[in-house]
Amino acid sequence: MKVLIIGGAGMIGQKLAQRLAKDGHLGGKPIDSLVLSDVVEARCRDCPFPMVAKVGDLSQPGHAEELVADRPDVIFHLAAIVSGEAEQEFDKGYRVNVDGTRALFEAVRKAGHKPRLVFTSSIAVFGAPFPEVIGDEFFTTPLTSYGTQKAIGELLLADYTRKGFFDGIGIRLPTICVRPGKPNKAASGFFSNIIREPLAGEEAVLPVSEDVRHWHASPRAAVGFLLHAATIDGAAVGPRRNLTMPGVSVTVAEQIEALRKVAGDKVVARIRREPDPTIMQIVAGWPRNFDASRAISLGFKADSSFEEIIRIHIEDELGGKIA
Amino acid sequence: MKVLIIGGAGMIGQKLAQRLAKDGHLGGKPIDSLVLSDVVEARCRDCPFPMVAKVGDLSQPGHAEELVADRPDVIFHLAAIVSGEAEQEFDKGYRVNVDGTRALFEAVRKAGHKPRLVFTSSIAVFGAPFPEVIGDEFFTTPLTSYGTQKAIGELLLADYTRKGFFDGIGIRLPTICVRPGKPNKAASGFFSNIIREPLAGEEAVLPVSEDVRHWHASPRAAVGFLLHAATIDGAAVGPRRNLTMPGVSVTVAEQIEALRKVAGDKVVARIRREPDPTIMQIVAGWPRNFDASRAISLGFKADSSFEEIIRIHIEDELGGKIA
Repeated sequence: MKVLIIGGAGMIGQKLAQRLAKDGHLGGKPIDSLVLSDVVEARCRDCPFPMVAKVGDLSQPGHAEELVADRPDVIFHLAAIVSGEAEQEFDKGYRVNVDGTRALFEAVRKAGHKPRLVFTSSIAVFGAPFPEVIGDEFFTTPLTSYGTQKAIGELLLADYTRKGFFDGIGIRLPTICVRPGKPNKAASGFFSNIIREPLAGEEAVLPVSEDVRHWHASPRAAVGFLLHAATIDGAAVGPRRNLTMPGVSVTVAEQIEALRKVAGDKVVARIRREPDPTIMQIVAGWPRNFDASRAISLGFKADSSFEEIIRIHIEDELGGKIA
Repeated sequence: MKVLIIGGAGMIGQKLAQRLAKDGHLGGKPIDSLVLSDVVEARCRDCPFPMVAKVGDLSQPGHAEELVADRPDVIFHLAAIVSGEAEQEFDKGYRVNVDGTRALFEAVRKAGHKPRLVFTSSIAVFGAPFPEVIGDEFFTTPLTSYGTQKAIGELLLADYTRKGFFDGIGIRLPTICVRPGKPNKAASGFFSNIIREPLAGEEAVLPVSEDVRHWHASPRAAVGFLLHAATIDGAAVGPRRNLTMPGVSVTVAEQIEALRKVAGDKVVARIRREPDPTIMQIVAGWPRNFDASRAISLGFKADSSFEEIIRIHIEDELGGKIA
């Protein structure tokens, strides 16, 4: 089978590509070729099947058509202008996240081969105030342009699927934790920073109080969601094609206690409290917990605990070693 | 103040225009001018202020910019490809209902004067299965392209409002009953046909069973919703800008009993039962009842009963006379 990953150079896109390279198959079918598309050239190490990197973005005329010209059997659409940038650059966010997504869907419709199309949405489709636990039938009232654009993508995905143009599954990813790489200034960065940096022997700043609760999934779980979404029986999903993925809901205090259990007091001592009222206010408007019953009943699997999330980071990113 | 009605030649657009002409003001402010835009030339009888009709549709390049060039204070956006046509003509539906709506929102953003913008959405944003009574926080999973396009319009309206580009209010209208004019083949047509035709001395066909329950508002109530939406305090609405309008939930049996009370057995006897399995199946997927608490708390007023809906039809369309 032919696989296309749009956004293949991003963190999740790369982990997905490497997982496909390692497995050599998807849903029991051998992978014949992989295309990685992104705005920079994506790579794939030790790829046992032919891999082609394509550079471009979906909002460029003709790019979507080029990507689907060889009729990929499975398309992962992970590409997006992220939340902060979409909020700063209104036109760019709509151009890439809405027009780009629609250009892809139209190109697939015109190709006519009805592939499985997996679209990564986000819990940013929800906007405060919400119930303590957000259920599968809660309405989408985003409070960012990014969330709006993802919610529009979800609606288009469901309608194109209903019309039989492709077989789409939208998955709303939890916040990815532990996000590898350097600390960044994203308001959500501290959820990962306070785990990743201490484990690497560095100090991390905690800008919010420890009773802040949030919804997490490891990069490994996210790749698992994508693979499951690529192979699940569409008929079992029915017309409601957008699913909140299961995650782990923990407070920051519970994150820290999990870190203590896994790595000890010495590592936890590297977390420095430095309250930041701006970040506290942003985070106060974020979801804390979900009831993802539908996705769970369809076989999507979350990490078992925040300790497991930390252990996955140590295994996958640190070669098993704690500083 | 300057008022623009897009879709001004339609049934609701015309009733709104005539109401504005009769009142001469909107929200206590005198109306200085009215523009009626539609794909055919709209009229306004006995208009006490200057009225200009413009012919075109929002998906034509430059039309939206032309409409907002003189910076209308209130814009009513009622124009749409209707449900059946949007389902048959996929590209046309998206072009007018999504691209046209977005072109309008962009033109308003660029004009920079931040008008009140009232957008008519629809209960078609909801898709079965639903609870017996649909609450204000129920999710939008449309089962038609029309419903999808309206849901996208709602998301855009909320985001453009949040960004301060205009001050939008989206209102989800109930099924309009009694719809004046000739019987049409819309699947929902019978809800009006079984009232309007017997009152006019004609036979009407009832294609579903009498226990079918549905959600109605009179044309007069719909105009009331539009006027209230045009003048309500946006701050009181907050960021959730799309509101399910209140309506009257009745079964077909209750519709018929209301007709009997208002017009007697002779009129009711003009309803002929002729079950149509296709229409029965379509209608089975429609909403039956809503809890429109938010709109009610914001001052939107439904008809008081289905009898009132019938009396409004007799007053407004039949000059008070029953055949």
